[in-house]
Amino acid sequence: MDEAPPPASPTGLSAYVAVSQLLGLTLLVTTGAWLGRYRGGVAWHSPLQFNVHPLCMVLGMVFLQGDALLVYRVFRHEAKRSTKALHALLHGLALVIALVGIVAVFESHRTKGIPDMYSLHSWCGMATFVLYLLQWLLGCGFFLFPGTSSSLRSRYKPHHIFFGISLFILSIAACLLGITEMLLFKISDSYSHFVPEGILANTLGVLLVAFGLVVGYMMTREDWKRPPLAEELALSMDFKTLTEGESPGDGSQ
Amino acid sequence: MDEAPPPASPTGLSAYVAVSQLLGLTLLVTTGAWLGRYRGGVAWHSPLQFNVHPLCMVLGMVFLQGDALLVYRVFRHEAKRSTKALHALLHGLALVIALVGIVAVFESHRTKGIPDMYSLHSWCGMATFVLYLLQWLLGCGFFLFPGTSSSLRSRYKPHHIFFGISLFILSIAACLLGITEMLLFKISDSYSHFVPEGILANTLGVLLVAFGLVVGYMMTREDWKRPPLAEELALSMDFKTLTEGESPGDGSQ
Repeated sequence: MDEAPPPASPTGLSAYVAVSQLLGLTLLVTTGAWLGRYRGGVAWHSPLQFNVHPLCMVLGMVFLQGDALLVYRVFRHEAKRSTKALHALLHGLALVIALVGIVAVFESHRTKGIPDMYSLHSWCGMATFVLYLLQWLLGCGFFLFPGTSSSLRSRYKPHHIFFGISLFILSIAACLLGITEMLLFKISDSYSHFVPEGILANTLGVLLVAFGLVVGYMMTREDWKRPPLAEELALSMDFKTLTEGESPGDGSQ
Repeated sequence: MDEAPPPASPTGLSAYVAVSQLLGLTLLVTTGAWLGRYRGGVAWHSPLQFNVHPLCMVLGMVFLQGDALLVYRVFRHEAKRSTKALHALLHGLALVIALVGIVAVFESHRTKGIPDMYSLHSWCGMATFVLYLLQWLLGCGFFLFPGTSSSLRSRYKPHHIFFGISLFILSIAACLLGITEMLLFKISDSYSHFVPEGILANTLGVLLVAFGLVVGYMMTREDWKRPPLAEELALSMDFKTLTEGESPGDGSQ
């Protein structure tokens, strides 16, 4: 095979990738600043254990989950198998970090005698986490398990994509609810006086929405979808002639 | 022209339309039940003026906005001009109802001496409303004003769709924040004891998410997009030969 120059990425994609990563890092810094400056910081075996929760949820369920969604756009010219593995790995890492965040809030509640799972934030957040775990398991079963047929993958793929984006949006919504809850628990008397902590936490909410919009735009822009590589196309044509004529998908998963 | 039988809708679409409308009506009933049973009902010139706000926002920014998004899927075999007019009309109605809801909360705050625009709910909600109004004005300018060129419409269309769906999601997120705020303002002492009001309002939140998911699924399912009618295709072919070869879009707007 001739050595061709590496294919170019679509115009604007790199700028959006840079903005998304800058926003993602700003999210983490803003969450850290809120917890460090106004909530005493973060520590596991201490009354500060609760603060592990927002940090882990923003890192796992927003930043890493968002980046996992983007790998097919960012590493568009890498082999599909590696990109798929990275997609699963980032989601897996997000799940582990989110689990730590969930354990932190349950342990903190137990220590302080606060009931669990009564608020809309907890309902939305827990449902999102459980469905996210299920989505990850199904994704591994359908797309990484070698025994799954190509036609079954093709049929599941649009649902995997729809629920993947939905769970990312729900994760951000759960974070916004968490911010509102925390502010009304901690600074209910001063929140309405535009105190710096309230403004900082509101700004974190706006940044979460901005991150969601940028990632969502990148995910849904048709001409930014990962094109199938030449060898994938050749393979899919060979496969097509061998089977009943089912299309093995458009290559974006 | 021969009289042909009316073309069939895709399998499953009618069931989803029915579920979406049932969910939408359940949203309104649940909001009404919450306000009527636990918050004293709704009235304009009274201390109950605040309660106009959640009712109008759920009706305008969620139910009507969601239905406005669906008209191209539901009335898929009607003339594009009529469908477009209905789309704009429903969004316009949603805007007017939302405006009443916003006036209600500002007047209620003024009467009770509560500051405005300090919470994350108010930031997200107001930004969503202002951008929704802007989106409506731009939509009218691009798609209803006869002077706008077809190529300009085609270029704007994907952005109109992306921001349309984003604003619908943001509207639901703002409602979830509003529910959480209202519960923590009104029943902060009993919310953690799983009192009926808390469970009802949380359920409203879950129903809002379910409505968003059903509408979102219908909006993004590729094979449910409105197909161009035969006469639109003929017109677009005629137009194509007359101009520089720009495609006038795929007919889903």
